[in-house]
Amino acid sequence: MIARLLACAALLLPLPAFATTHFDHADGASIGRDGTIDRFTGMVVDDDGRIVQLLDFGDTPEGEIDYYIDLEGRIVLPGMIDAHAHVMDLGLASLTLDLSATSSVDEALALVAEYVQRFPNRPWIVGRGWNEVTWGLGRFPTAEELDSVSDRPIALERADGHAVWANSAALAAAGITSRSADPAGGRIIRKPGSRDPAGVLVDNAMGLVLDQVPPPRAQDLDLALHAAQQELFSRGVTAAADMGTTIEDWMTFRRAGDAGRLQLRIMSYAASIPEMLLIGGTGPTLWLYQDRLRLNGVKLWLDGALGSRGALLKQDYQDDPGNRGLNVIDGTQLRNMMSRAAMNDFQVAIHAIGDAANLEALYAIDELSADFTGDRRWRIEHAQIVDSADIPLFGQHGIIASMQPVHQTSDRLMAEARLGPDRLHGAYAWRSIAATGAPLAFGSDAPVEVPDPFEGLAVAISRTDASGQPFGGWMPEETISREKALAAYTAGAAYAGFADGRFGSLAVGERADFLVLDGDPLLSGPDQIRAITVLETWIAGERVYSSED
Amino acid sequence: MIARLLACAALLLPLPAFATTHFDHADGASIGRDGTIDRFTGMVVDDDGRIVQLLDFGDTPEGEIDYYIDLEGRIVLPGMIDAHAHVMDLGLASLTLDLSATSSVDEALALVAEYVQRFPNRPWIVGRGWNEVTWGLGRFPTAEELDSVSDRPIALERADGHAVWANSAALAAAGITSRSADPAGGRIIRKPGSRDPAGVLVDNAMGLVLDQVPPPRAQDLDLALHAAQQELFSRGVTAAADMGTTIEDWMTFRRAGDAGRLQLRIMSYAASIPEMLLIGGTGPTLWLYQDRLRLNGVKLWLDGALGSRGALLKQDYQDDPGNRGLNVIDGTQLRNMMSRAAMNDFQVAIHAIGDAANLEALYAIDELSADFTGDRRWRIEHAQIVDSADIPLFGQHGIIASMQPVHQTSDRLMAEARLGPDRLHGAYAWRSIAATGAPLAFGSDAPVEVPDPFEGLAVAISRTDASGQPFGGWMPEETISREKALAAYTAGAAYAGFADGRFGSLAVGERADFLVLDGDPLLSGPDQIRAITVLETWIAGERVYSSED
Repeated sequence: MIARLLACAALLLPLPAFATTHFDHADGASIGRDGTIDRFTGMVVDDDGRIVQLLDFGDTPEGEIDYYIDLEGRIVLPGMIDAHAHVMDLGLASLTLDLSATSSVDEALALVAEYVQRFPNRPWIVGRGWNEVTWGLGRFPTAEELDSVSDRPIALERADGHAVWANSAALAAAGITSRSADPAGGRIIRKPGSRDPAGVLVDNAMGLVLDQVPPPRAQDLDLALHAAQQELFSRGVTAAADMGTTIEDWMTFRRAGDAGRLQLRIMSYAASIPEMLLIGGTGPTLWLYQDRLRLNGVKLWLDGALGSRGALLKQDYQDDPGNRGLNVIDGTQLRNMMSRAAMNDFQVAIHAIGDAANLEALYAIDELSADFTGDRRWRIEHAQIVDSADIPLFGQHGIIASMQPVHQTSDRLMAEARLGPDRLHGAYAWRSIAATGAPLAFGSDAPVEVPDPFEGLAVAISRTDASGQPFGGWMPEETISREKALAAYTAGAAYAGFADGRFGSLAVGERADFLVLDGDPLLSGPDQIRAITVLETWIAGERVYSSED
Repeated sequence: MIARLLACAALLLPLPAFATTHFDHADGASIGRDGTIDRFTGMVVDDDGRIVQLLDFGDTPEGEIDYYIDLEGRIVLPGMIDAHAHVMDLGLASLTLDLSATSSVDEALALVAEYVQRFPNRPWIVGRGWNEVTWGLGRFPTAEELDSVSDRPIALERADGHAVWANSAALAAAGITSRSADPAGGRIIRKPGSRDPAGVLVDNAMGLVLDQVPPPRAQDLDLALHAAQQELFSRGVTAAADMGTTIEDWMTFRRAGDAGRLQLRIMSYAASIPEMLLIGGTGPTLWLYQDRLRLNGVKLWLDGALGSRGALLKQDYQDDPGNRGLNVIDGTQLRNMMSRAAMNDFQVAIHAIGDAANLEALYAIDELSADFTGDRRWRIEHAQIVDSADIPLFGQHGIIASMQPVHQTSDRLMAEARLGPDRLHGAYAWRSIAATGAPLAFGSDAPVEVPDPFEGLAVAISRTDASGQPFGGWMPEETISREKALAAYTAGAAYAGFADGRFGSLAVGERADFLVLDGDPLLSGPDQIRAITVLETWIAGERVYSSED
């Protein structure tokens, strides 16, 4: 073999790198979109990271093998796909100074100082999570205290997001002086017995400083993408749909791809129609970097969120009579944007949380399906609160329900307050929606939620949170099987992003993106699934994460 | 060989395409940056399109040869590099309806009709070049005449650019009715005995319609890039510096590169600092698509042009007392922008036409060179009118003079009018500037001028135009040798774009970008050089143009 390699090397300039790898002794399973399980014990993966052979016990690989990897009988599953994430926001969040664990102002100042050291070139130091109450400080912290740490501008949000702690450089950048008046709905905390700003800005006064914070620099975006990839790999996520890609985000993905630093597979949905046209031009991009990046289409925001009472409802909010939420865009704008995208074969993903927004989206898809035929894979993102009467509409036109199981456990009490008991029958109703024939794709909405697919799997099959609440599950009739939940995190999420046939299944011809686990979610209860450790994460036959590193 | 290939094929999945080509019987010459000529009779080019061997008469190629191409003793030179072009504008211009050759309104209408047919999906039909005087029409053309051709909006600029001929759809899009008043400095031609618009808009009224023309769609940009490549290849240009790349231009280049449709080599200079940062992020991009695309840096506009009296002069315009031209940006802005670019190692190319602008640029480069050391290759674009007293400053810091020889013949009479005889000693002074040690890079400023490097070569060595005027040449002391002129169109232009070692010379290790010609510019007079036909254009060992196609 080596001899023949050298013979080739002699006449190949340059020598093409190539290798075939045999992964042996896997306790492997691949999941079809319908939840069917295919077991295997080995894989042969070629130089492009594609599976060329799936092996059962006793099978022997065909052809030359250059490398052999013994998986020692451990559990192997397809890499998880997060069907709804914000990749750059996840990375940027992980780079932001977090003071939420501090128990004193001195501890916080020490953390800030350490962070200032770590990023000597950051023009601004931004953070969050302080709370003078838990510190037992009995007063707000001051600009002077931060001045002792750095003369670069510093802006730190309070844990509740209702105040900013700024140093003198930040106050100066915002032009806040003793002569500055409090803005409407905001307050500039003053020094005792003086009008001089003390260093804390409340509510609408926060913007005075926060508006001065420059957007992240390219090198920060590069760091953020790296951090996001590492976090996702450590949780077993090998691909993600990026829901709301800006042109800056896209250029960051391409910088990484061009330099060979893009390992995560990203299915991108532009943040606006103009950005969709700028990035894709005449249609979706090609699959770039060996199936690691593609602009599929556009994300459209139809309504707001439930917590802030922005979700568009058919009836008033139970806890806010007279309010039915807000239309971010109206039905005509929605249809115009959908048409503009569909006429160039861009995929459309519609953010719809309230029952009125979901019905509007379902109607719009139904209408546009008359003009735009073929394989469109219309997506509704979240599909959180749906009128049970409208659920059957998901069954038409193969509409994809892109849902985030963990929202159900995080939001259930809030949802009950916003809607009352009678309007919750179609809430987070993945089983009922799937029953109409609508394909399911599961995700996390990271960084809104932690991008942990195992937490999501546990919720999807149990409708209980990590503490087992509520006992027996919240609307337990909406639980689905382990197989179906796993499919929504793998083959289903790949289908939702036009990636089927490329990744999402461990099948011949697809990329070898897989996880090595210490437990089998197909044979575990919710608590066991939450406790599963991702031992290794592999993308295209290359290990990108090990729990031992 | 074949047997060994198959042996490899057996264990290579997929089989790597590779081939070595022997180009034989060339009457070849490569030109060094200093104008030294290296003759050769053959090249061996590898699979990547790189030259692995240069052969002299009697040499035999080493190693296996897969393909043999006989150049039959024809003249072979390096592909020409246009050091200052506007690639997308060149392509868009070639796609614009041109009525300048029409001799009657009916002929023009026929051309419009044919164009409307050819582009059924263009929302607007835009063109230029009509002249009712040469038509002998005795009146302006009318909207009705265009209405007969298409109900899509049509806007056609008059030959002199001082009027627009519009159809009713265009007038409607602009909201021009009988109630519309003439804008200041403009006139809406009305129908006889009525206030209804007749279809022609003069001077400042042109904008009413032209502002309605949508920007080109992505598919138009793709067509334009294709057209630009074809035109450049047909003239022997294999690489270009794109001076003022917008984000839309860049995305068009990448679409072509991703799809394998980018053959031209593009050295890109962003149209603004924000676009530079958006495209490059942390610095110049990598060389993409096998040395076919790189963002080098940014183009900065310091002054305007001579024709419009926007060039910044030390003294008043001879033909416009009191006017010294305009600062597009002031010296402080220039230095700030240069610093912002240089701090991330972006290259800086400064547009400077007037003598005051050139001195400002020279001073700024001198100042910044103290902080930004290393290989910066500061560029001054055009360097058209320089005070002879300032020319020595080009010798410092290796400042590159990026000049366009054809501007000298096109502009000389206008330059004499603008400046008078006494201030022209440093005009288009390529010989004097080169004598200071400043590297020369020649280009065309296409589409302002035709991107014909042979015309440029003829002008560079003769300072006469195609009709031989003025006899003996305009300021003939500024002519340079054939060798130096050719160097400025090849190795010099490559060096100016950080492409030396990649392309620009026919040398071992560089890409095989070359021309097959029916005459040798090194042995020809100006008229013979202008008459040279590009028989074939090759990029990376692949033929991209043949005069026989």
